[in-house]
Amino acid sequence: MAEDTGGLPPRSDFSAWYNEVIRRAEIMDVRYPVKGLYVWYPFGFALRSQTYTLLRGLLNRDHEETLFPLLIPETEFMKEAEHIKGFENEVYWVTHGGLSLLEVKLALRPTSETAIYPMYALWIRSHADLPLKLYQIVSTFRCETKHTRPLIRLREITSFMESHTVHATWDEANEQVEYELGLSQEFYRDLGIPILISKRPDWDKFPGADFTMAIDVVMPDGRTLQIGTVHHLGDHFSRTFGITYEDVNGEQQFGLQTCYGISERCIAAIIGVHGDDKGLVLPATVAPTQVAIIPVIVGKRGDEILAAGEELESELKQSGLRVKMDTRDMRPGAKYYHWELHGVPLRVELGPRDLDSRQLVCVNRLGAKTIISRENAAESVKKLLGEVHDQILARAESHLESRLMTATTSEECCRKLDGNVMAVHWCGCRECADKLEELTNASLLGTEIRSRYVIDDEGPCIICSKLGRAALVGRSY
Amino acid sequence: MAEDTGGLPPRSDFSAWYNEVIRRAEIMDVRYPVKGLYVWYPFGFALRSQTYTLLRGLLNRDHEETLFPLLIPETEFMKEAEHIKGFENEVYWVTHGGLSLLEVKLALRPTSETAIYPMYALWIRSHADLPLKLYQIVSTFRCETKHTRPLIRLREITSFMESHTVHATWDEANEQVEYELGLSQEFYRDLGIPILISKRPDWDKFPGADFTMAIDVVMPDGRTLQIGTVHHLGDHFSRTFGITYEDVNGEQQFGLQTCYGISERCIAAIIGVHGDDKGLVLPATVAPTQVAIIPVIVGKRGDEILAAGEELESELKQSGLRVKMDTRDMRPGAKYYHWELHGVPLRVELGPRDLDSRQLVCVNRLGAKTIISRENAAESVKKLLGEVHDQILARAESHLESRLMTATTSEECCRKLDGNVMAVHWCGCRECADKLEELTNASLLGTEIRSRYVIDDEGPCIICSKLGRAALVGRSY
Repeated sequence: MAEDTGGLPPRSDFSAWYNEVIRRAEIMDVRYPVKGLYVWYPFGFALRSQTYTLLRGLLNRDHEETLFPLLIPETEFMKEAEHIKGFENEVYWVTHGGLSLLEVKLALRPTSETAIYPMYALWIRSHADLPLKLYQIVSTFRCETKHTRPLIRLREITSFMESHTVHATWDEANEQVEYELGLSQEFYRDLGIPILISKRPDWDKFPGADFTMAIDVVMPDGRTLQIGTVHHLGDHFSRTFGITYEDVNGEQQFGLQTCYGISERCIAAIIGVHGDDKGLVLPATVAPTQVAIIPVIVGKRGDEILAAGEELESELKQSGLRVKMDTRDMRPGAKYYHWELHGVPLRVELGPRDLDSRQLVCVNRLGAKTIISRENAAESVKKLLGEVHDQILARAESHLESRLMTATTSEECCRKLDGNVMAVHWCGCRECADKLEELTNASLLGTEIRSRYVIDDEGPCIICSKLGRAALVGRSY
Repeated sequence: MAEDTGGLPPRSDFSAWYNEVIRRAEIMDVRYPVKGLYVWYPFGFALRSQTYTLLRGLLNRDHEETLFPLLIPETEFMKEAEHIKGFENEVYWVTHGGLSLLEVKLALRPTSETAIYPMYALWIRSHADLPLKLYQIVSTFRCETKHTRPLIRLREITSFMESHTVHATWDEANEQVEYELGLSQEFYRDLGIPILISKRPDWDKFPGADFTMAIDVVMPDGRTLQIGTVHHLGDHFSRTFGITYEDVNGEQQFGLQTCYGISERCIAAIIGVHGDDKGLVLPATVAPTQVAIIPVIVGKRGDEILAAGEELESELKQSGLRVKMDTRDMRPGAKYYHWELHGVPLRVELGPRDLDSRQLVCVNRLGAKTIISRENAAESVKKLLGEVHDQILARAESHLESRLMTATTSEECCRKLDGNVMAVHWCGCRECADKLEELTNASLLGTEIRSRYVIDDEGPCIICSKLGRAALVGRSY
């Protein structure tokens, strides 16, 4: 797994940069011998572990984690008509066990509604069993025919968090949708990633949902990446799978459901939104190593410097920080390059002069140098990590702001759309949306937009001029 | 998920007890509509999470975690002849993606050698890349034809930890085998589970290994359960997959490999070895809840008791303990029953008299009552948890000791074997082993036994009377 020390393509050439940084910063290896399946390197896996630890922490406030089987019998999978239609072209099927044909073929879950809901039908009896809020983090599978790309479009999605809740009423399920949108906002704020929330148009909602709220991020090339969805399922699935409860009056009622998903695209967003020409820029909340200590050994005081470095490392670790001292036999400059490529938020340089002055030279990943006192180093380091987090969030916010534009005519929309996301007004009818998508070669992402940069107001439809509402238009991954 | 308050079958009827405790203590639900696939309840999943956090902690000392794809192309899977033979009857095959036949069919990993080693061949170039020590925790699949049972024999093994290492020499790989046996001993000691280590006979080793060291536990019915294996793979796989390195002299050499596995059978062992007629008995190291606080509200001081309980809960949590106060509207007796069934190591009862005396009544899962002072409660509780851990380990050790017997004739072996594991002498030849297995209707588990209860000495073979070595014979799951 030797490091490639050649330069990265510039991040302005985003697609080339992304592929190279995924490889050189050891996130994933794309050379696995099946298209669309990738291998997590240990470093990438450590980033994944930290990110999902953060997500679990948020979910565990009021969800419980569980695990359902990967294999779904065709008989269950085929029960919900809209759902089948949405997935039938991309489901992998297991047909043989050993040398024998299976009696009932088994789907590799593309998502787990049809695995989970038959069990919910057994588990839920009365209103006292509600609400039920479970989640799992699993691999899901889709036989993608489109161009695959690590973390973004895969045939094995290795890190799909899916939450499935059941409630007594449609309104309670709707409150859960809001709650889970709130969790997502908190999650992405902790990652320093500003998001756009909108309601997907009806033809683009999850197969079998009442409606779908989507979370998008704008990548450096101006294309949007869907990095989360919350679906209000109404009673579609509970009617299909018989998820009923006895209400306080002794009547049988169908449960009302939501589901909610976040995949490893959240890691694609971390990489894409924050990275720069030197490589990854990781938020301290999830960086596998938050602080790299680089001993700068000149002259005879090597042992003394290493001892001081070890003492500092252990002190910072004690305070809960993830720290590594890099004692490899390499020039300091090569170590700086390594840790910058891997996005470490803060590097501490430790040379003879620093020992004498009882000071530490700290350089954050954005290049800002601060000299701190050796006393209370842990506290100062935490403050610096907080600062660099605020800086990367602010930078990401101004990037998002610069990519959001408005248009009142389809001609203006076309002209401004390259590299940007457009806010327009749309009357809500399918015909106008189709026409707009065709004229702009882009997608109508959604309405009921929640973003401090877009005003969710009314105005004349960009196509038919009838009264419309704000809608986002963009090119998506 | 309502609780069933009927009595459990006695643990002496182990098979019935096991199935019932799995269900009632909410470990797994067996009603998933595919044979051999089970659903983790949230409580079972929490036990799994704690157990694998413990295992990860041990492995992370010198292994790194990673993740490889689930799907293995037939072309790679078929490369190692012995390996194929070992698995071909139980591999699930994906043949279709959507409605199309795949060009190359894909195996659901039964184990990951053939997924991982093609990548190792790319990653390893020089002696400086060695040793390489990675692991992953994944689902593996086997189309079992035998009777399936939760956590013990499954078609989806949901929690397979597999470590794969590469070394420069056979001896270094052999040291790794010893190291990983040591890790296993530490892991199972932390779970309070005494184990037997032995070398599996040649015909029972992992397909493609030089040799297999196995870790067995003796379940309450006297049957052994294999709860871990460490394989020395020699250079079988490195020759097949081209895993070579340049040594210090610039010569190309094949890597020497080990692999090492522990599955959710470790949780079956926790349940089986420690449980009793009241339900689970969980080691404090992995119990999802280590301490249950039960407010005993009599008279008018309810609010005061709840406030004191909350204060205690928060104090114990602060000190790192996993604590739950049970405020449900139920009789204390029903709560005791609930927490005993779920194996909580320590329950703290909190009533008006305890408030007045500034004391706490602690009852451990084995029934021992201790009164501790409210001052320094966290420290005292930790001490009690340590004591109950020692007690369950000691109990498990004396159970194991009582189940180990010796025999010098096949007739004696047959007579004593029901419910026990036998130590005999065996000359090492296949014919004698076959004869012994046939006569006893049991398996020759292994030689080179490591256990303080079995002496690994020499003696006349139980079948042919030639000089032999100690060997274990038992009936296995």
